[in-house]
Amino acid sequence: MEFNLTKSLEILERTPTVLNTLLSGLSDNWTMQNEGGETWSPYDVMGHLIHGERTDWMQRLNIILDSKGDNKFASFDRFAQFEESKGKTLNDLLTEFETIRKANLEKLKALKLNNSHLEMTGIHPKFGSVTMKQLLSTWTVHDLAHTGQIVRVMAKQYKEEVGPWVEYLRILQS
Amino acid sequence: MEFNLTKSLEILERTPTVLNTLLSGLSDNWTMQNEGGETWSPYDVMGHLIHGERTDWMQRLNIILDSKGDNKFASFDRFAQFEESKGKTLNDLLTEFETIRKANLEKLKALKLNNSHLEMTGIHPKFGSVTMKQLLSTWTVHDLAHTGQIVRVMAKQYKEEVGPWVEYLRILQS
Repeated sequence: MEFNLTKSLEILERTPTVLNTLLSGLSDNWTMQNEGGETWSPYDVMGHLIHGERTDWMQRLNIILDSKGDNKFASFDRFAQFEESKGKTLNDLLTEFETIRKANLEKLKALKLNNSHLEMTGIHPKFGSVTMKQLLSTWTVHDLAHTGQIVRVMAKQYKEEVGPWVEYLRILQS
Repeated sequence: MEFNLTKSLEILERTPTVLNTLLSGLSDNWTMQNEGGETWSPYDVMGHLIHGERTDWMQRLNIILDSKGDNKFASFDRFAQFEESKGKTLNDLLTEFETIRKANLEKLKALKLNNSHLEMTGIHPKFGSVTMKQLLSTWTVHDLAHTGQIVRVMAKQYKEEVGPWVEYLRILQS
């Protein structure tokens, strides 16, 4: 499937509701545990998604649009959420994500991007030149990737409990 | 985390709403495509979940409880949905899953299972003796596994569109 802004918005607009439906009111056993070591819990993932809304997606999109300036992206801090989420409940994070995503998508839609905008480029710190279309596709896939990560982390809390069925459950081996 | 019926129900009860929120009203590009070859689309996965509600989880649980009879499980048909979903829309499947899951969980709760029930066993066609606790844990993880599969299949529809970011998106490589 080729990039399509309307179809990307179908995903970007629903992610906060999907995550709210998935996580709101669950026991901490499901939401505050990780996959071991330095991996992230569903709670940590919510903080990461919020940090992306604050500092990454729309900021990079605006850097691409602002053709007068330096079009290099800043690096994204993948660990900022450990500081920023302090003292917040999971429900605080779910609400915060919903609010900031909604505001970002309103700004995105107000830009009325056309096909030539979508081909404009910025400089990624590692990859070099990337297009706006690739940035928006990545934002969309990033939502799905972290939703997948959340359900995987939750599933793994029962890894020992499924007994021999572990063999049929690829999610527990990944 | 050890098996806990209440905590399993937290997941089992919300899965129909999660999938409805995730899939309802999406373009067919997201819901009717698969990962290539014989893999399943989100639409196919919904049919599989319904077939499990009809023929697998509660049936096996009842076989375990019915200590007077033969406690061998029937084999589960992993491909039945291709026949059974014919002529149905994705929204039909989402509604059907919600209805049958709700009915199954009402039956499950009415059994008022205690710890000795949870240790009772049945004979799985491949694994041999399995406990009711393992069956119920597997039902729970199975929900999360297929939710994860659905978001992975959706993400892959944009695999070519993310450009160099594919390197950071593990979901596109799995």
